[in-house]
Amino acid sequence: MIKKAAMNAALGLGLMALAGVGHANVVNNNITEAEIQSAQQAWGKALIQIGQDYRTAGIDKAKRTAEAVLDGAYGYSMGPVLFKPTLTSGTQTFRTTRDGALAYFVGGDQRYPNDSGFALKGWEKYDFNNAAVYINGDMALTMGKVMLTDKDGKVTTVDKTWGFKKDDDGKLRIVLHHSSLPYSPK
Amino acid sequence: MIKKAAMNAALGLGLMALAGVGHANVVNNNITEAEIQSAQQAWGKALIQIGQDYRTAGIDKAKRTAEAVLDGAYGYSMGPVLFKPTLTSGTQTFRTTRDGALAYFVGGDQRYPNDSGFALKGWEKYDFNNAAVYINGDMALTMGKVMLTDKDGKVTTVDKTWGFKKDDDGKLRIVLHHSSLPYSPK
Amino acid sequence: MIKKAAMNAALGLGLMALAGVGHANVVNNNITEAEIQSAQQAWGKALIQIGQDYRTAGIDKAKRTAEAVLDGAYGYSMGPVLFKPTLTSGTQTFRTTRDGALAYFVGGDQRYPNDSGFALKGWEKYDFNNAAVYINGDMALTMGKVMLTDKDGKVTTVDKTWGFKKDDDGKLRIVLHHSSLPYSPK
Amino acid sequence: MIKKAAMNAALGLGLMALAGVGHANVVNNNITEAEIQSAQQAWGKALIQIGQDYRTAGIDKAKRTAEAVLDGAYGYSMGPVLFKPTLTSGTQTFRTTRDGALAYFVGGDQRYPNDSGFALKGWEKYDFNNAAVYINGDMALTMGKVMLTDKDGKVTTVDKTWGFKKDDDGKLRIVLHHSSLPYSPK
Repeated sequence: MIKKAAMNAALGLGLMALAGVGHANVVNNNITEAEIQSAQQAWGKALIQIGQDYRTAGIDKAKRTAEAVLDGAYGYSMGPVLFKPTLTSGTQTFRTTRDGALAYFVGGDQRYPNDSGFALKGWEKYDFNNAAVYINGDMALTMGKVMLTDKDGKVTTVDKTWGFKKDDDGKLRIVLHHSSLPYSPK
Repeated sequence: MIKKAAMNAALGLGLMALAGVGHANVVNNNITEAEIQSAQQAWGKALIQIGQDYRTAGIDKAKRTAEAVLDGAYGYSMGPVLFKPTLTSGTQTFRTTRDGALAYFVGGDQRYPNDSGFALKGWEKYDFNNAAVYINGDMALTMGKVMLTDKDGKVTTVDKTWGFKKDDDGKLRIVLHHSSLPYSPK
Repeated sequence: MIKKAAMNAALGLGLMALAGVGHANVVNNNITEAEIQSAQQAWGKALIQIGQDYRTAGIDKAKRTAEAVLDGAYGYSMGPVLFKPTLTSGTQTFRTTRDGALAYFVGGDQRYPNDSGFALKGWEKYDFNNAAVYINGDMALTMGKVMLTDKDGKVTTVDKTWGFKKDDDGKLRIVLHHSSLPYSPK
Repeated sequence: MIKKAAMNAALGLGLMALAGVGHANVVNNNITEAEIQSAQQAWGKALIQIGQDYRTAGIDKAKRTAEAVLDGAYGYSMGPVLFKPTLTSGTQTFRTTRDGALAYFVGGDQRYPNDSGFALKGWEKYDFNNAAVYINGDMALTMGKVMLTDKDGKVTTVDKTWGFKKDDDGKLRIVLHHSSLPYSPK
């Protein structure tokens, strides 16, 4: 439970700070930019991994991987998650439950008949371009463009907002995720 | 500067709490659900007001009202705001500056040639339906559907996420705003 | 893990709020005054319980109870705790580790030779009078006077400051505790 | 109002972070160890300054300096402050108001007859030795020993706890201050 990384956070502060605060025991519950960067990268890797598992080992393996991602990287164990996936609509637009999120990523849930499995589309490359980042204690918000490249080299761009909450173990969890296709002026 | 409302927050706690904590001086910097509700209502009223001012007094008055809204209800004075309006795209998708937000709401800025003024469209009615709310200290996140009705009775629905930050004066400010048209399955 | 109490927090908000926010799923990580009150009461009960266990079942039982209190009500599992007990001094003034805190409450640790076991003194009654309370997100600070009455009816008053942090399970944990005997003007 | 320092916080993150997050606009409301260090040093300097102003320019100047310190470094403008000075007792132990704090530092207030003016004692040197630091969003707690040296070279050591809150302008303000003379075992 001890946030060792946080306790070593004094490293970058220089001699003055080390003389005054740095030699003390420090608990720091705050989110850093490096942690945000890692969490964003991990999301992209996880999305690609689910698709790879689908192609190489089938839907059951892909589903297990998706469950592991939801349990490890999202905040469903802490309550409802504010999740608006890219391709959902109507009364099923928001996926505040783990079941709803799982259906979106891997499909196969008859309660969500429009879900064909976003993570099964064969994404091979992932890039994130942050427009702005807002850090407030153990919560961070990011907004930017995500570029997903599929196996044919076709790039899909989405506008994406994330809200991360740092849990007691020092892990960032997604508690907010709003993804939308770019607006197309007529 | 003293948050009087927060200091009276003990009212609902019952006798036990009053005996122990309630008679003490209490500072409470946290956001309440009532404050979130008020901020969401205020946003809708402001949007309608800008359009009314445009019709009754012209673009200059509408622009002044929009500026007052941005200065009073958004967090641009505290830094960049994570704002993805409904109808923006390309390199101008994100409006992290006050100028970019103003152009979106009232148009007339040649640096944003695609902006025709979202608040000038004559909205007359506003409803918000929260799918979920996340409260974390002085920050709150909401996600849901907004229904805007124009003067002809036509309803436009958008998927909307807001992030509110409570400032030192106890006022909620929008530091995150992601709005998108619903996905249309083909 | 889901903070059910927090999700029902809309109860006191009235009809307006229920119409707008209250029917949504709400996650609320903030500390309430009622939780602070409970945590303060629990600390007093725990102190008395350790002493009762000592008298009725001996030091081993008292020590196990003290360990349960430290593990359940303090934040040592999350890192160092800022603990300055009433009767410590010199290089052992601050008890940032669980071992140091345990020694203070039940004694018997040769590494802390001046500790005779504060919780073994036979306290029978406990009162707390808050001078002020400061609530900031998932952290709350309290300052006031604690009155401890022993079995002979003698009252000891101390000036006490607490810092509580709400953990992921919704439990308040003491991360700061400064206790001192009142200053005696000569 | 823009926290420029925070916006430059990416500097220490290295190339990976800069590639992903660092080129974005970043708002960071969190307290850093360097800011805590600065605030602790500023408190010591301010205490010495009040005494110097008293000796060189008299009580009126000292009082004005003390008022500036209270307004600039404490949180009285935001509500009651949890302040237990070293040498207060009885019903006047806690100084939750600006008046009470001012009386403690410079005396001369007939409502606080026991206050002789702690800052007027001629302190010339100040050291702080943190036992532990706890950082939680825009709030930080420190606990340690303060060593004050007077003009005769005599050192007074106190056990001191501070709670700092970062305001909207990025300035740390003392919202908690518990100071006590070391316990003297008989």
